[in-house]
Amino acid sequence: MIFILFLLTLLSHSTSNASVLDFCVADLSSPQTPSGYPCKSSVTIKDFVFSNFNEGNTSNFFKFSVTPAFVDQFPAVNGLGISTARLDLDIGGTVPMHSHRGASELIIVVQGRITAGFISSANEVFVTTLSKGEILVFPQGLLHFEFNAGKSKASAFLIFSSSNPGSQVVDLALFGNKLSSALVEKTTLLDHAQVRKLKAIFGGSG
Amino acid sequence: MIFILFLLTLLSHSTSNASVLDFCVADLSSPQTPSGYPCKSSVTIKDFVFSNFNEGNTSNFFKFSVTPAFVDQFPAVNGLGISTARLDLDIGGTVPMHSHRGASELIIVVQGRITAGFISSANEVFVTTLSKGEILVFPQGLLHFEFNAGKSKASAFLIFSSSNPGSQVVDLALFGNKLSSALVEKTTLLDHAQVRKLKAIFGGSG
Amino acid sequence: MIFILFLLTLLSHSTSNASVLDFCVADLSSPQTPSGYPCKSSVTIKDFVFSNFNEGNTSNFFKFSVTPAFVDQFPAVNGLGISTARLDLDIGGTVPMHSHRGASELIIVVQGRITAGFISSANEVFVTTLSKGEILVFPQGLLHFEFNAGKSKASAFLIFSSSNPGSQVVDLALFGNKLSSALVEKTTLLDHAQVRKLKAIFGGSG
Amino acid sequence: MIFILFLLTLLSHSTSNASVLDFCVADLSSPQTPSGYPCKSSVTIKDFVFSNFNEGNTSNFFKFSVTPAFVDQFPAVNGLGISTARLDLDIGGTVPMHSHRGASELIIVVQGRITAGFISSANEVFVTTLSKGEILVFPQGLLHFEFNAGKSKASAFLIFSSSNPGSQVVDLALFGNKLSSALVEKTTLLDHAQVRKLKAIFGGSG
Amino acid sequence: MIFILFLLTLLSHSTSNASVLDFCVADLSSPQTPSGYPCKSSVTIKDFVFSNFNEGNTSNFFKFSVTPAFVDQFPAVNGLGISTARLDLDIGGTVPMHSHRGASELIIVVQGRITAGFISSANEVFVTTLSKGEILVFPQGLLHFEFNAGKSKASAFLIFSSSNPGSQVVDLALFGNKLSSALVEKTTLLDHAQVRKLKAIFGGSG
Amino acid sequence: MIFILFLLTLLSHSTSNASVLDFCVADLSSPQTPSGYPCKSSVTIKDFVFSNFNEGNTSNFFKFSVTPAFVDQFPAVNGLGISTARLDLDIGGTVPMHSHRGASELIIVVQGRITAGFISSANEVFVTTLSKGEILVFPQGLLHFEFNAGKSKASAFLIFSSSNPGSQVVDLALFGNKLSSALVEKTTLLDHAQVRKLKAIFGGSG
Repeated sequence: MIFILFLLTLLSHSTSNASVLDFCVADLSSPQTPSGYPCKSSVTIKDFVFSNFNEGNTSNFFKFSVTPAFVDQFPAVNGLGISTARLDLDIGGTVPMHSHRGASELIIVVQGRITAGFISSANEVFVTTLSKGEILVFPQGLLHFEFNAGKSKASAFLIFSSSNPGSQVVDLALFGNKLSSALVEKTTLLDHAQVRKLKAIFGGSG
Repeated sequence: MIFILFLLTLLSHSTSNASVLDFCVADLSSPQTPSGYPCKSSVTIKDFVFSNFNEGNTSNFFKFSVTPAFVDQFPAVNGLGISTARLDLDIGGTVPMHSHRGASELIIVVQGRITAGFISSANEVFVTTLSKGEILVFPQGLLHFEFNAGKSKASAFLIFSSSNPGSQVVDLALFGNKLSSALVEKTTLLDHAQVRKLKAIFGGSG
Repeated sequence: MIFILFLLTLLSHSTSNASVLDFCVADLSSPQTPSGYPCKSSVTIKDFVFSNFNEGNTSNFFKFSVTPAFVDQFPAVNGLGISTARLDLDIGGTVPMHSHRGASELIIVVQGRITAGFISSANEVFVTTLSKGEILVFPQGLLHFEFNAGKSKASAFLIFSSSNPGSQVVDLALFGNKLSSALVEKTTLLDHAQVRKLKAIFGGSG
Repeated sequence: MIFILFLLTLLSHSTSNASVLDFCVADLSSPQTPSGYPCKSSVTIKDFVFSNFNEGNTSNFFKFSVTPAFVDQFPAVNGLGISTARLDLDIGGTVPMHSHRGASELIIVVQGRITAGFISSANEVFVTTLSKGEILVFPQGLLHFEFNAGKSKASAFLIFSSSNPGSQVVDLALFGNKLSSALVEKTTLLDHAQVRKLKAIFGGSG
Repeated sequence: MIFILFLLTLLSHSTSNASVLDFCVADLSSPQTPSGYPCKSSVTIKDFVFSNFNEGNTSNFFKFSVTPAFVDQFPAVNGLGISTARLDLDIGGTVPMHSHRGASELIIVVQGRITAGFISSANEVFVTTLSKGEILVFPQGLLHFEFNAGKSKASAFLIFSSSNPGSQVVDLALFGNKLSSALVEKTTLLDHAQVRKLKAIFGGSG
Repeated sequence: MIFILFLLTLLSHSTSNASVLDFCVADLSSPQTPSGYPCKSSVTIKDFVFSNFNEGNTSNFFKFSVTPAFVDQFPAVNGLGISTARLDLDIGGTVPMHSHRGASELIIVVQGRITAGFISSANEVFVTTLSKGEILVFPQGLLHFEFNAGKSKASAFLIFSSSNPGSQVVDLALFGNKLSSALVEKTTLLDHAQVRKLKAIFGGSG
């Protein structure tokens, strides 16, 4: 046994996880840094498992649900540059136009058929309909969308190249906050009536 | 003189620029890589100078002009993780809602008064009006806008944390390409008439 | 229409994909660089879709199958720092002890039950059994394994924080190449007979 | 309104800034990490604005002034890999030979005419004179200088590819600290009298 | 003297180390982040010197010794992406098969003759014998080994592209912890007797 | 044997080095990219060995010698973020004041005694004398120097956190090229006579 400790000391230079940065499970109670959360000082197998990757509740306006396993839900991905989420689309369900400032995304369809697309910086449109077992790439920061293209429920796994991709939904950004109607109209050329109508739907003020 | 060459050889290990990667001026004629363009094999001081950073033509619908010095216009920034652009706003000029997938941005007002703002992933709105000599940060990938808040022309310098930030204008992405009206309506809840009207303005088809 | 091209020129600074590095679909026919493959000069929606993410053939010694969507199979992930693979385990199937030099990994169980684990640099063992919808993290470069813990087929999606994670199977590295038995025995303390036996299985010479 | 919170929860996974790392405004009171300062837990628009980017006082030996907006003066750039500074040069003003260990730099002349140059690792000299609206690149870590080439005041904006570029002025490093004259002479071959003279100017001891 | 402080303020923007991130000497008493340890608030020359890089004790089973100067032993390398270690091999000494999850390695032989090799992801074997003054590369995360090929003691300096490379020895990972014999046998095809024998040597339980 | 190829295909996804980016040995005949040289398409063990790390010729003005193993001399370090060099100092030998724009450095003394030091951005001086087996850190981009502090030859190994650190010697940058005396004097305050004298030594013109 002594020999083992000796070898460990020689080759692993540590008997604790915290000082061997194989991983850095987030201590969500500490302030973040630009590289992520500080590391928990001790971990168990439980820290590395995420168990809530189940079908979400799609009984809402857009008939979709996203179940994230990002760093705030799954601290083990802190610092690893990777995370995932589950997407469920009821019949007729849609994920409205949105983008992720911090990650490229892969969508893997696991059930049903999903139409998905993105628009590039060169303003080209890339749209396709995916069946079970097909994968599409959404490059980082570009507007994209998905909707159920079939007659039954659809589901997909979303993979992100960041532990915290962030999301921005166009409708929420324009109509779901205190951004004034005047500002929205000026910066989008949308009509006043249209803006008011959507602010009512998305709960925006001003 | 021999001594110098000797010292150079010892300490600079090179007599050519290309093999001392102080810089990598883009060879725009070669295919890009994920890290940028391959390097030009020989350079002169001219390669490091950009001379067209002048006031742009704002006689257009939005009464604004952006003069970029990105890698495609200024190959010397290739690989340096930095670039810049000049913004000019005529009276009443506006930069419509847009985002940059690849860079955070600083705006430095050099003339007039500019109202600028962005919306965060947490859907908070950050808006302010800047006078000459004031700077605002736009974090990477988030929707933001600027407009002339004064009674005279306004100008600003835009600084980006990438040699190729990319830009996506919401109106262009939604109304300026072949994305079908049906898709736009489905993913934004905008009315059909509104979408048709804006497609007419921005030249979108479908 | 002119106005659109104008806006595009101002804000997207490009009319081609290649010079707006939203993405860099690999040109697999060109030599790689440390950041990945050079970019294809023109792309279509087909470049962004992977369609072969189906159940693999598990009729082999270990009764498992891995279907990769890495950069060599799915060029669209080039430079994005992300890729995926599908794992299928027949009843009794096992993925032998291995590591990925270039990526951390998430395993998401989509069918059946899978026992998985890894060993840390501090030589701690982390093992658990995952059911459908559970996720485990394998930190970069650490030895790990999976096997079917149930009485039916099991499947999982593997997510990697690199477009080209690389893989090293301990048995293949020790017994499946020309590494001499003497070297294997000296560096592992395995018995000669054991090494010979496994070289026979894994086709090693020397 | 409920629907909005729901969408936010689904797509932004957060109702606070701190856990959505769109940005990481520096908490200057906490110890730095290799990636920068920890993030402030709550921010307002004021955190994103810098208002002191005005002409500096050039009544000094070199007749120049640098007004930095680096992370210590402008905490919002923390973690963004970008910062800026304003340079003012009185008639005859000079920025002495210096380098920035942590950033490449762009200089944009906004008033007057400035001669600027740098020396490469291959010991090539790159010098030019810039007029208003011209930009020059200084690659990271290389010695460079600027001086007023005109008959009136000159100003420029300096852009850096780091939130904290650091600066090292050759004269200060050699003559403005406790580095002994003997060491300076030995490592530069400067004459003793010259070293003493400059130490007197720059306040060096030893 | 006033002029100096003035210049310092203008150009270095700091009078403390902590806020000029030239370096970030680790505060080992604080929790790590994904980018390393937080920085010590004040440092002296002593913080930058490592003095224990001497010949280690090789009186152990494998007759080798590794003396690390990683971040936990040499806090000054924190955040610098570099570290080193000294290797000593007695006559007949061997470093067993291992890998480093976080770093590529260079071995520089300084005394004697050392046989070293690694196995690639493509399962190719690269082996050679190095004499004093020869260097070999071990790419990140790949299994490699070294042993004394001569009739006298051998020594080498090991250079790593990380301040905390981490190490995983195959024998320790398989036989030196609580990983059950059943799991080892299942994931390696090693015989039960062999596993028990090596667990006895390396102190594994289960 | 078939089984092996099968396993390799499944787990290594390659039968060539080039498409498994364990390493990227530089093809020095191709243009560099910002991430380094393109990779050689096929390699052997010879590509990974550097054999010229011997004592250099110190019969020169400064009585020192640097033998680099950077990417241009040792293509195997391409893309690995690491390189090394050997330093030899004759009695009285000195490495003049210099900096490396692209790397932090460790100096390991292997023979004799060496005085070494650097100056920080905060203009603090860090100097010490190292004996055999002692290590000092030089943070990236900061001016530093070394000289033989003993009565016999001294040698050291230099470790860099880049495959191509670049070097800039103050005397060469100021006096060993075509930078005009007037420019040197203006940007350093050195006397004309001093500049002429050193230009004569270092072979500068103008």
